[in-house]
Amino acid sequence: MPTIEQARLWYQEADPVHDFEHVLRVYRIAERLAIAEGADLEVVHAAALLHDSRGSAPGGSGAERLEHHITSAQFAGKVLLQEGWTEERIHAVQHCIRAHRFRHNGEKPQSLEAKVLFDADKLDVLGAIGAARTIVYGALDGKPLYTEPSEQFIQTGKETPGELHSSYHEYLFKLSKIKDLIFTESGIKLAESRHAFLVQFYEELRAECRGER
Amino acid sequence: MPTIEQARLWYQEADPVHDFEHVLRVYRIAERLAIAEGADLEVVHAAALLHDSRGSAPGGSGAERLEHHITSAQFAGKVLLQEGWTEERIHAVQHCIRAHRFRHNGEKPQSLEAKVLFDADKLDVLGAIGAARTIVYGALDGKPLYTEPSEQFIQTGKETPGELHSSYHEYLFKLSKIKDLIFTESGIKLAESRHAFLVQFYEELRAECRGER
Repeated sequence: MPTIEQARLWYQEADPVHDFEHVLRVYRIAERLAIAEGADLEVVHAAALLHDSRGSAPGGSGAERLEHHITSAQFAGKVLLQEGWTEERIHAVQHCIRAHRFRHNGEKPQSLEAKVLFDADKLDVLGAIGAARTIVYGALDGKPLYTEPSEQFIQTGKETPGELHSSYHEYLFKLSKIKDLIFTESGIKLAESRHAFLVQFYEELRAECRGER
Repeated sequence: MPTIEQARLWYQEADPVHDFEHVLRVYRIAERLAIAEGADLEVVHAAALLHDSRGSAPGGSGAERLEHHITSAQFAGKVLLQEGWTEERIHAVQHCIRAHRFRHNGEKPQSLEAKVLFDADKLDVLGAIGAARTIVYGALDGKPLYTEPSEQFIQTGKETPGELHSSYHEYLFKLSKIKDLIFTESGIKLAESRHAFLVQFYEELRAECRGER
């Protein structure tokens, strides 16, 4: 089993939103869910430490970033083979990693361990930490914290010409729907409380930015 | 009186934390406080639009940034002279701008209008918007969102060797004390509610980052 100190070295080049602090948060939450759900703790631990390991590899382009779940699973295979893991358990970890980015297509989480990793990763875009990461991600890309969304954006998720995509837009269009993706019962409980905080945060941000509070 | 559209042009080079959105929020809150307190609305409006106008002037270094209240007051003088303002009213606006950065020394807000601008500017580092701006400011400087503060930091505000100054450190050391600086009665009311939200935000962030919530 790779240690946390070993794992830290894989994330030297990471962006501030997918850095080693993110990995540690996912690790802690995945551990908590794994225990509550009765998942294989060793597989979950390894998958959590390795899940974004090649996400920000040096020279990584947009396309490489898109495919980081694939390159991370390959990297995990090499690391765990060196650690003497069996092929079956390596595949279990690789499935977790490949499936943690499941959206409309691609590999869906099938095993309990994959659902646990998926949930832990998604929980890190909910709550206060989710708001903080979304805000940083937008700011690094030159996006504003808050701009008033158009009626069209609220209805369709498409900006009007010249409308800036602020972190509030990202909340309306994406973050506010994340809780419905969670698989495990203990993940859903955490997601509900973090979702409620996220809603409160963005309502507060909106009221303050409009000078109402 | 300069228009909001004119003022927008003064902030093209601004950093994401002192950008024109910040100016507009300060403008709206300052207007609200000015009306509640019976301050001169025209002076407050002009001071709010001009208060950070030279904050990120091209070529601005750290030292220039430190002195932005001085350079912004000078710029305000030129703009308002062109607009045909009297010397007395120009001085009233310049006092607001120079005093909005009052800390341990320097020019303290004396007039009601200066207290209103000061309060509005400080309110923008409280609440959800204050948390968001602090997080962005830290992230742009490579600082983490959350790291565990040492006992020494909690007691003294000084990091131990190697301790990273996260946005949570900034909250403990600085943001949590801002509300005590506010001058006006209506500013204090807003500050109390924004301070309460800030405390809630950082308690939530801490609990989530520790895997407790």
